Parts: sequence; structure tokens; C-alpha cells
Amino acid sequence: MHDTGGTDRPTCNSITKRGTTTMKILLAYDGTNVAMDALHLAVKHGKAFNATVYIVHSLAGGTGDDEEKITAATDQLSFAEGIFRKEGVSCDTHLLVRGLPPGEDIVRFAEENRIDTIIMGVRRRTQVGKLLFGSTAAFVILNAPCPVITTR
Amino acid sequence: MHDTGGTDRPTCNSITKRGTTTMKILLAYDGTNVAMDALHLAVKHGKAFNATVYIVHSLAGGTGDDEEKITAATDQLSFAEGIFRKEGVSCDTHLLVRGLPPGEDIVRFAEENRIDTIIMGVRRRTQVGKLLFGSTAAFVILNAPCPVITTR
Repeated sequence: MHDTGGTDRPTCNSITKRGTTTMKILLAYDGTNVAMDALHLAVKHGKAFNATVYIVHSLAGGTGDDEEKITAATDQLSFAEGIFRKEGVSCDTHLLVRGLPPGEDIVRFAEENRIDTIIMGVRRRTQVGKLLFGSTAAFVILNAPCPVITTR
Repeated sequence: MHDTGGTDRPTCNSITKRGTTTMKILLAYDGTNVAMDALHLAVKHGKAFNATVYIVHSLAGGTGDDEEKITAATDQLSFAEGIFRKEGVSCDTHLLVRGLPPGEDIVRFAEENRIDTIIMGVRRRTQVGKLLFGSTAAFVILNAPCPVITTR
């Protein structure tokens, strides 16, 4: 397992001053345009609910070009983190490389971290331009332990 | 067209005191258990964003038992409205009977009323108990003019 943020690390931001647990939002972020739309939505929801946003990028790993992909994903996560910091929204970044397909990885992370809401993009087009569900989005919507916000 | 709330009626709740437009949430509500989960989510989001919630029930109509269905749907909308009023969340109810499948009806209503977020349930099981997308939810997620929050 590789996790830049780490589920083992105490997230100091997840406890408010009054001792109550804040809302936790998981943003599935892979640097695509639709993930950027999801990011802006997560900023909005993070502010409205005074939530901590877990920015999660899942890589299955084991493809031979892992180092290159991990470097790119780390850069994308840093970029996303910068936007949340600038907007004053509490966040953590998590790069998951644990051999799971992205949908399963996201659902499992949500369960492990008691996430309250998942935010993700669903844009996926066939060759004839018709919108179709990506299998990742469909899996997450049907298996998530919490509500899922999709943007396209 | 039959619409208990009416898109023609001015929604006095949609303008704040400062003259800015408030956020508009569309709750797809058909009285099922999963719609009730979606309702509670809409209450939470309505409070967080100080939004107006449009509670929408779509009936295609033309099935011969329309009167009975309209009475039941009207009762369900009144019940839902009562919960929002009690929670102090601004709302309108809309019963749509205009010959459209529910997914198309919801998307069109969202477009006509410049809805910011749609909230709906997605629970649907096959005979072997496997979760499947309802065609309504899939259509709405892929065609909505705004983000869609699903609960299952």
C-alpha cells in the first residue's frame, strides 16, 4: 500500500474546537477536466459544511510504469491541495496504490475513513459521442456507504 | 400539464433579502423508502446552503388510474412539505403530469427552473438481490444540467 496522506496519520483537521467530528468529503481526483469540475464542487461543499476534504487519487499499480504515474498523480494532488488551501478549505491528499480497481479503492477508502459524501465526475463518452456511465462511477454510486455527488 | 406548484407562479422564497438568488435544490420524491433518505439529505443540504428545495413528483400520466395516482402523489408531497416546514427549510411542491418519463421530466424541470443540485435515490435490485441502476437515475445523472446527489 502506498498512501501519501495515510489513513494511519491522525487528521488534526477532523476534530472541531468543540470536540465534535466534522463532516468528511471524499473527492475522487485524477486530474481530468471532469475531476476539476468535481474539485470546484468539493470546494463549495467543503465551505458550506465546514468539512474536511480528502482528495483521493487511486492507481491500481503493477503496470510497469508505476513510478511515472505516481509522480504525475502526486503533482496533480499537490495542485488540487493548493486550490483548497487558497480557498481556506481543510484538506488531506491520499494517493492509493494498493492493487484495487479505482471504484473499489474509493468505496473501501470511504468505508475505512467514515466518509460522509463522495464527490466525483462521471463524464465518459462513446465513440459516437453518446454519454455513458464509466464503470468506476457506476460501481461507486451503487456501493458507496454514503451519498455520492456526481458532475459531468 | 399539471403542476401543483407551477413554474409560472413566482417563488417568493427564491430571492433573498439582499436581492441575490438563493440556491435551488430539486428533490425527486415519490414516497418510497429511498426517496425518504433523499429527503433527509435534502433537508441537510437545504440548511447548509440556505437553499429552496423544489420537491418534485413526476407521473407520466395516461395510464387510466391517473386520478388515484395523483391523489396519492399529492398526499406524499404534502407529507414531504410538512417535514421541510418543520425543519425550517424553504420549499415548493411540484406534481408533474405531462406525459414524460420521470428521468426526462426531472431533467427538463431542472433546466426550466435553473436548478443547482438534484437529489434522488438510486436503490433498485434485481431478483437475485444485486443492486442495479434504475434507468431514471442513470438518465438523470447523465443528462442533468447540474450536479446530482444520489443515495441508495
